[in-house]
Amino acid sequence: MQSARNLADRIASAASAEPAGSTTRGNGTTPRVAVIGAGPCGLALLRAFTEAAKSGAELPELVCFEKQSNWAGIWNYTWRTGTDAAGDPVHGSMYRHLWSNAPKECLEFADYTFDEHFAKPVPSYPPREVLYDYIVARAQKSDIRKYIQFDTAVRWISHDAKKDNFSVTVEGVHTGEFRTEEFDYVVVASGHFSTPNVPDFPGFEQFPGRILHSHDFRDSREFAGQHLLVVGASYSAEDLALQAKKYGAASVTITYRTAPMGFDWPEGISEVPLLTHVKGSTAHFSDGSSRTVDAIVLCTGYRHHFPFVEDSLRLRTRNILYPENLYKGVFWVPNPKLMYLGMQDLYYTFTLFDAEAWYARDYILGRKTAPSAEEMCRDIASWRARQETVSSWFDAVDFQAEHMKDLLADVDYPKFDIELTRKHFHSWLNHKKQNIAGYRDFSGFTSPCTGTKSPDHHTRWWNAMDDSATAFLATGARGE
Amino acid sequence: MQSARNLADRIASAASAEPAGSTTRGNGTTPRVAVIGAGPCGLALLRAFTEAAKSGAELPELVCFEKQSNWAGIWNYTWRTGTDAAGDPVHGSMYRHLWSNAPKECLEFADYTFDEHFAKPVPSYPPREVLYDYIVARAQKSDIRKYIQFDTAVRWISHDAKKDNFSVTVEGVHTGEFRTEEFDYVVVASGHFSTPNVPDFPGFEQFPGRILHSHDFRDSREFAGQHLLVVGASYSAEDLALQAKKYGAASVTITYRTAPMGFDWPEGISEVPLLTHVKGSTAHFSDGSSRTVDAIVLCTGYRHHFPFVEDSLRLRTRNILYPENLYKGVFWVPNPKLMYLGMQDLYYTFTLFDAEAWYARDYILGRKTAPSAEEMCRDIASWRARQETVSSWFDAVDFQAEHMKDLLADVDYPKFDIELTRKHFHSWLNHKKQNIAGYRDFSGFTSPCTGTKSPDHHTRWWNAMDDSATAFLATGARGE
Repeated sequence: MQSARNLADRIASAASAEPAGSTTRGNGTTPRVAVIGAGPCGLALLRAFTEAAKSGAELPELVCFEKQSNWAGIWNYTWRTGTDAAGDPVHGSMYRHLWSNAPKECLEFADYTFDEHFAKPVPSYPPREVLYDYIVARAQKSDIRKYIQFDTAVRWISHDAKKDNFSVTVEGVHTGEFRTEEFDYVVVASGHFSTPNVPDFPGFEQFPGRILHSHDFRDSREFAGQHLLVVGASYSAEDLALQAKKYGAASVTITYRTAPMGFDWPEGISEVPLLTHVKGSTAHFSDGSSRTVDAIVLCTGYRHHFPFVEDSLRLRTRNILYPENLYKGVFWVPNPKLMYLGMQDLYYTFTLFDAEAWYARDYILGRKTAPSAEEMCRDIASWRARQETVSSWFDAVDFQAEHMKDLLADVDYPKFDIELTRKHFHSWLNHKKQNIAGYRDFSGFTSPCTGTKSPDHHTRWWNAMDDSATAFLATGARGE
Repeated sequence: MQSARNLADRIASAASAEPAGSTTRGNGTTPRVAVIGAGPCGLALLRAFTEAAKSGAELPELVCFEKQSNWAGIWNYTWRTGTDAAGDPVHGSMYRHLWSNAPKECLEFADYTFDEHFAKPVPSYPPREVLYDYIVARAQKSDIRKYIQFDTAVRWISHDAKKDNFSVTVEGVHTGEFRTEEFDYVVVASGHFSTPNVPDFPGFEQFPGRILHSHDFRDSREFAGQHLLVVGASYSAEDLALQAKKYGAASVTITYRTAPMGFDWPEGISEVPLLTHVKGSTAHFSDGSSRTVDAIVLCTGYRHHFPFVEDSLRLRTRNILYPENLYKGVFWVPNPKLMYLGMQDLYYTFTLFDAEAWYARDYILGRKTAPSAEEMCRDIASWRARQETVSSWFDAVDFQAEHMKDLLADVDYPKFDIELTRKHFHSWLNHKKQNIAGYRDFSGFTSPCTGTKSPDHHTRWWNAMDDSATAFLATGARGE
């Protein structure tokens, strides 16, 4: 048997074995940047470059590969589950009737404010379609669609040490055609909410109803009238339990491993200790109790999964605030020309992505350099030591605010009031404690960019069954 | 930009750039054979080799890669849908309560008869678990498990023209570790019922119930009490419609593109022309009719999908009786050292796999040689010309019987009465016409190997709700 050699090695030696003449690129001086994914992170990076161009920066050659047919990543809703039209795992985890689960003031683009987008104050917790429009509108304004190759899946990324560049092999998902290109920089922006973590429990094989991961959850109305078991104790479990009940589930039982979420749930939602096994359609829990249920939703999280990145370049991490090996949360320490965007456990979302994107852009433009590996490791270690002291959601928000400040201090992203967003997050956490089914009804959050105050929504979230942008943006006094 | 070069080229040149010393294999004389998949086809091939060994053949080095944790391919039932524990698309399409949809006498292993397996006559239409046991029992008897590397997914197969061998790159699905090995022969036995073909219809995005492909169908009881829409007009549509009704669906509407299946459906199942669109939960059809439905099952077939095979080696075909480019239905014409098993539209299943496996084995053992490419093409063309004349299911059965005879004439697979199986298939087709919900109740099929006659099952299929092997094999007079 041949000694084991991985695909990465092979590709690297293929590249190094090539005659020099076969690997020319453009005029030989413009660096090439591969961006993997045209979701919020990828779009933020492209936007960052076009903003720099406005003030005269000479841009590298930007190539963004997107396996879907449209942009916005998981915000690009699909009814599909399982495999997509090309036979790949469906990327999206988005469900119908998703409304923002944190105030929009905490994720406002400082360079494209809600005032600019809506031209009027709007409530703080918009549904998916509204946020999708917001993301896409900024992208359209930046004229960045031209950089994106849609229906193009990245199959393999490897590094050639001799040339100090990357080979990126992509497939046209509908043509089945492969090609490989070389790049000076690679930015992985493919997200970490697409590959579900799916545990097994005894008895699942004989359970007569549907068992699904939250990744495949699409429309709560499917579960109207049913008794639902939700496995998990984080955002997905919290929101899908509420959703299901709101849209008519007969009951929702949430089973947790370590600790209950402990919210003051509406009638018909309750938490029990961990599922031990299922017998027929009866779920048994570790406290000896049991419930007969119609369907089981595994809200058991996602995996950072990059099967298209060669071993030695691959980020391996759980979903935490400050992953190992990423300087500033972005730069791959062994080779900072490889960057990862948005890989943190997220409180700040769009704004954190922007902060990371602006920083990555400046590095690629040569405005910043990476310090020595030793120094990067020291910096990461200090953040990770601090991470150890995080013991509440409030702490976690504060930690991420500091991380974002650290990035923003050094880039020309428009200023906004980070302290205010931190306070908003704290209010949000308190609102959830007060009323988990009603926290989205709180208003009066002020924009950290413009100071605009969010009004009441015309309908309390629990009663707002229509999640369209039209319904959300309609005006009117709040009905109770 | 670099000229496009695909991963295959890279791997090939990596291999050719290696110093000779790094690619040794064993003693340098034993050929190496990679078998992709340990389902019925892969197991048949391994079995074929062990049978040859009994009569003194010197075996090549056999390495079977299986991405699942157990063997039997799609017969290895899983409750999972979407992505598996490793983040790959779930392979299996098997559902609970699947019973054979053709008489078992038409798929009997001639070298491991039902008499040998059951030691008594058993009815002709066993449920999944019984057939799973049958497949696995032969495999166990052959001591072939040792050749299989489980939890190992094949990621890339390429050919090196200089060495005239194949590089196969695999990943340990739980370790994320890649390695590449070289092989003299590759046999692709990964099946073609795993990658769903999933069409879109207007209104799916707003449909409030579940939309799934039959690939993700697991347990009919999920749909009890519901009004179901089934899209399709082939085996999956036929069987899932019956299943769903049997287990309590309120109604099943089947929508077809070209022609209805036209069976005499039980009360509550009906066929209508093609779905045009969905509005809310109402499905509209091309004849202007409409139905309100709770769930939609897309029985729209599967794709021959081999993303792990380099372009120039990749079989591209629809699901037909005699695909292009496969001599004898097996050998890849441009390079017969690459073989595909079981890629036909299937009537004969296990026996056709065996016929192909025995033929492939003899080629690998040097007992047969491949004719010139020209001759192979001529042979394929004559089969494909005949395929054009197939105009009924009866014709299709006859065609495949001839294909199988052609293979079996040349190998030492134990003789069995193919003509009898052809007659059985014709009876089966007539039984279905007579009574689609009762065709599985017909008995009296005789074994083409032993002559044993199948008895009545103790319970009519429509009333047999328990699909366990224990229930099926219990004896007793038929209750009505």
